[in-house]
Amino acid sequence: MQYSKNFYQIKSNETIFNNIKKEKEEVGYYSLPFQDTSDIKEFSKNIKQKYIVVVGVGGSSLGTFAIYDFLKRTHNYNKFLHFFDTTDPVDINAKIKKIDLADSLFIVISKSGTTIETISIFKYLHSKVKLDNKNCIIISEAKSKLTLYAKKHNMKYFILDENIGGRFSVFSVVGLVPLACVGVDIDVLLKGCKKVYNSFFSQEEFYAPLMEKARFIVENKYRFNINVIFSYSSALKGFNDWYIQLWGESLGKLNINNTRQAFTPIGLIGPIDQHSFLQLIAEGKRDKTVTFIKVQSRDDDATIPKVKLDYLDELECVDNLSFNDLITYQADATIKSIDQMEDIPYDVITIQKIDEYNIAKLMFSYELLTSVVGNFIQINTYNQPGVEGGKKILKTTLKTKILDKK
Amino acid sequence: MQYSKNFYQIKSNETIFNNIKKEKEEVGYYSLPFQDTSDIKEFSKNIKQKYIVVVGVGGSSLGTFAIYDFLKRTHNYNKFLHFFDTTDPVDINAKIKKIDLADSLFIVISKSGTTIETISIFKYLHSKVKLDNKNCIIISEAKSKLTLYAKKHNMKYFILDENIGGRFSVFSVVGLVPLACVGVDIDVLLKGCKKVYNSFFSQEEFYAPLMEKARFIVENKYRFNINVIFSYSSALKGFNDWYIQLWGESLGKLNINNTRQAFTPIGLIGPIDQHSFLQLIAEGKRDKTVTFIKVQSRDDDATIPKVKLDYLDELECVDNLSFNDLITYQADATIKSIDQMEDIPYDVITIQKIDEYNIAKLMFSYELLTSVVGNFIQINTYNQPGVEGGKKILKTTLKTKILDKK
Repeated sequence: MQYSKNFYQIKSNETIFNNIKKEKEEVGYYSLPFQDTSDIKEFSKNIKQKYIVVVGVGGSSLGTFAIYDFLKRTHNYNKFLHFFDTTDPVDINAKIKKIDLADSLFIVISKSGTTIETISIFKYLHSKVKLDNKNCIIISEAKSKLTLYAKKHNMKYFILDENIGGRFSVFSVVGLVPLACVGVDIDVLLKGCKKVYNSFFSQEEFYAPLMEKARFIVENKYRFNINVIFSYSSALKGFNDWYIQLWGESLGKLNINNTRQAFTPIGLIGPIDQHSFLQLIAEGKRDKTVTFIKVQSRDDDATIPKVKLDYLDELECVDNLSFNDLITYQADATIKSIDQMEDIPYDVITIQKIDEYNIAKLMFSYELLTSVVGNFIQINTYNQPGVEGGKKILKTTLKTKILDKK
Repeated sequence: MQYSKNFYQIKSNETIFNNIKKEKEEVGYYSLPFQDTSDIKEFSKNIKQKYIVVVGVGGSSLGTFAIYDFLKRTHNYNKFLHFFDTTDPVDINAKIKKIDLADSLFIVISKSGTTIETISIFKYLHSKVKLDNKNCIIISEAKSKLTLYAKKHNMKYFILDENIGGRFSVFSVVGLVPLACVGVDIDVLLKGCKKVYNSFFSQEEFYAPLMEKARFIVENKYRFNINVIFSYSSALKGFNDWYIQLWGESLGKLNINNTRQAFTPIGLIGPIDQHSFLQLIAEGKRDKTVTFIKVQSRDDDATIPKVKLDYLDELECVDNLSFNDLITYQADATIKSIDQMEDIPYDVITIQKIDEYNIAKLMFSYELLTSVVGNFIQINTYNQPGVEGGKKILKTTLKTKILDKK
């Protein structure tokens, strides 16, 4: 008697850890913390333009935006980062109004080099301002046609390794080049990644909680098919959006039994969504795990002043309270109310402060978590066959339209 | 033998329709299309300030933002609308930098009048600029302490009816006052609402599709517990966020059998999220219904120019194509690819153009849909008991802190 190899089993943590160690020899993102950044720093220190403009969709912009969005309110950068990430003309033209085209560096990012949206926007911008080797650089794979284009036109280009997927590319040149141009300390970013990497692969601090969380999510995937991140900071809005792509596109797959996996990501912002989505978590079906993310200190001492308001005496309880404390109390109160329900699985991540080191730790640990969950459920975490159907239909439509015109 | 009255049954469409007709005599939002707007228009036409600043969280800002976000890119308003909707100090101070406090009209909105976040921000702003009857107005319930405060200080105030809940208040003074101040045609908004109202209650155009959709969602709620809106327009980002509150907070309830209901809302933006979340819809577990929203015409003729790019000939297929057509082709390609899978329930809503009439129709029909689903599953659509626990804990924490100080 022989058991089918095709019965999906949840393997041991040790097996998964060994798989990940093997995987990191092939999958490019794992080694990004250890890359040489001297070329990027050399390039970025000479940028004269005030506006840094990323032209790139999906994985070519979400991670970069997440880091910039986290840092921009508290770091006074003297350059501005903008993103052309959609084909919506209303959005494109509104964004053009916000920048000075003559004082912009355009960073065109496409892994394949032939992303329809990216090249369409590139062409459109090209008709508004001449894009040449003085104001435009390219990030793409070594062999792509876009890289050939850059070479022919003497444009500066950076190569994205083939074995790094878009949604795992934030710590590659895709994220580091635009972030360095705007003034983000990219070496500190990588230091944060290294901290998590070393800790995980030495099976220290981050190892056990990460494996435990991944295993729980996998073992209970039919009961809790929705994974909510509840961030108590407006600066984590971009992170939430990046997480949604990372989680949804990596784990929404068919496994070795051809069974549809579904880990549906949701991103919430604490003080806002506790006035909306919280009701659903609290009284709705128990189909969600919740990860709260708190920021310990914001280097911001904005305090609610002692103002006497007629009739509103009951709200004197907030007088002399800092907003940093108020938002922390709000987070703690929400967490406690969820805890008291006893049947909602949750965890809490606390970020020390709003800086490069902390956001990199958070994002790199989420990349690892995604890889571990993907390994547990025996899927290919790094492809996206489900979006190819729509792309093919679009290409056929566009080609038919050309024939119609002829 | 007698059957328990307590066995939940899905009732007939006719019964539900009769329930809704009864409900509209008690629940305030249904009659908003027919309100008298002369006082709002009289007030708003005399506003001198350049910045209109809403201080209000959750339902006091999400709907207003949805409409403003939809219109602002294509309508050249000469005033700007800003929202203080969170206690995050980093966010508050970043927003203060974007406005001229001395040239701002502050609209403080709190249904109860004692929302901790709103009053805390009000106090903070009060310490930055004197808030009096020249630059501050109040929107609250008639009997609230905040309304008493407004009266005592001779501030202009608008009364929000008690029987209109926050998340159903966008077409009340809560939304209409700030929108009128910024230049939105509020009578056309209400015209859009009336169109849907009349059509639904006369059982014409909107009636059958709305009942059919609600019934499908309810009958299949255990299979498809996630309801995705996939908007092919960046201008619908605010609408998506408003929908998430409306749907999640209204329907995340215990029903008459004490069974937890869960209709989990997700909001996506087409050209961006088809590079991320689409994979999960296409290959993940069949636990989602999808509503695509398309915009037919954008009054924007931005066109991809015929630019010859060396090596990139294959992308000549987009030359001379308008972005409006490209985004439509993208939407149609995604819809077709989902359609071909045959087991993902979806529908398509097409908006004619980006104006007041169309956004009002969309939002009012979603309010009706929410009410109908709530009626089908026999819950109270209009309360939010699940968020009270956290609020109580927060109040206790704040009071304890005061005692600690004394």
